[in-house]
Amino acid sequence: LLPEAQRDWLDVVLVSPRNPLNIGAAARAMANFGFQRLSVVAPYEAHWREARSAIGAPDLLQNARETASLSEAIAACTLVIGTGSVAARRPEQKIIALPSLTPLVRSELERGGRSALVFGPEKRGLTRDDLSHCHLLVEIPTAPRQPSMNLGQAVAVCLYELATRTQLAQEFAAESRSHGTEPNAPAATLDLLGEVIERTITAAVYSPPDMEAANRHDLRLLLRRLNLNSADARRTLGVFRRILWRLKRPRP
Amino acid sequence: LLPEAQRDWLDVVLVSPRNPLNIGAAARAMANFGFQRLSVVAPYEAHWREARSAIGAPDLLQNARETASLSEAIAACTLVIGTGSVAARRPEQKIIALPSLTPLVRSELERGGRSALVFGPEKRGLTRDDLSHCHLLVEIPTAPRQPSMNLGQAVAVCLYELATRTQLAQEFAAESRSHGTEPNAPAATLDLLGEVIERTITAAVYSPPDMEAANRHDLRLLLRRLNLNSADARRTLGVFRRILWRLKRPRP
Repeated sequence: LLPEAQRDWLDVVLVSPRNPLNIGAAARAMANFGFQRLSVVAPYEAHWREARSAIGAPDLLQNARETASLSEAIAACTLVIGTGSVAARRPEQKIIALPSLTPLVRSELERGGRSALVFGPEKRGLTRDDLSHCHLLVEIPTAPRQPSMNLGQAVAVCLYELATRTQLAQEFAAESRSHGTEPNAPAATLDLLGEVIERTITAAVYSPPDMEAANRHDLRLLLRRLNLNSADARRTLGVFRRILWRLKRPRP
Repeated sequence: LLPEAQRDWLDVVLVSPRNPLNIGAAARAMANFGFQRLSVVAPYEAHWREARSAIGAPDLLQNARETASLSEAIAACTLVIGTGSVAARRPEQKIIALPSLTPLVRSELERGGRSALVFGPEKRGLTRDDLSHCHLLVEIPTAPRQPSMNLGQAVAVCLYELATRTQLAQEFAAESRSHGTEPNAPAATLDLLGEVIERTITAAVYSPPDMEAANRHDLRLLLRRLNLNSADARRTLGVFRRILWRLKRPRP
């Protein structure tokens, strides 16, 4: 298993989970593999209450964070990993098979970053909008005839992988070299940058208003593809703030 | 994932599972990772019926074998792997951490053997007697504070490991060399051999009758530690049959 301190660097995020048994099972798998930080986004209140009050519910369920939006839940995270079957959709990010995920997360840890593993609701999985907050998608290699896993089991399999794969030092080292030595900028910084860029685009009258939502989506994806570190993100933010100020203040 | 044909060589065996949801979850995990062969030993009939008739139950649950005893369920298997936490008991077999299991199972496959992965009932796990049928025990590396996994999640994690670990060729090759090229004798052959040896011991008046159960248990463990192949087992069986015949038929 990962050292205790490192397991603190993974957030497990459940988006609108429905079945209290699945919430409990996810929390139990976290406890089994020594993870502590659970966030629940926009839960169905009755089911969420039921899951938390279940007999034998692990402490971490009591300490779970509840947020209204996914971006709030992952604000401090520098590597956001979406889960689910991507067979039915056109993937917009890099897809990693679960057995290859550990080196990436470890690399992020080594650089002082924090990762989040995001699970969607039982029936429909993560939406396209949810996924646009993710740097990459992880796929559990399942059989084509029955690709969709139960939520509690998917959480268990992912956490088993992340907690126990320690022998991948070599692969990890290779991966480290290909990234920089800085962790990615946290999601909150990317969101702020995205917002300022969007306002700049609008101020520049770059595209018609009905393209706004599509542009925002594409911009969010782009900012995650770039793997900006915090310094890069702050610098870029400064540039766009200056541009925005200039656009709104006509020259004399 | 393992090639389809190879996944036919793993039996998943649930001993007296209690919760229909767990039976369903185990079957679903099997379908997710492409395994087909499920056996259920001495199930609680009502719960077993409920699990099989559940909406969306995978086909393999309909085709599952039901046996009265564990030895019947694993009769054709050459490598029997018990699961569960061994923290509370004195282990009598070799214990393997789950991440190291795949090379052993693959080695058995390569030699033409068949493996079984045996899960105990939810509350108490496999008994000492159940475990004496196992060549080795596998342990999922869990956190000391919450070591015990939910049955459906434990099945999912084990099958994920066995289905997806394909990059361990090197380790696997090393393991292959340390074994012979023959698979182990099937469990049914070992049971027959054990029975004949026991009758021989009794005929030879080797130990008092109240030691019978303990001797049987130790003998079963010994026969599995030896990793006899089928030819070895048949030869040994022949020797003991001859001895037994001689013991029972006083010389002229």
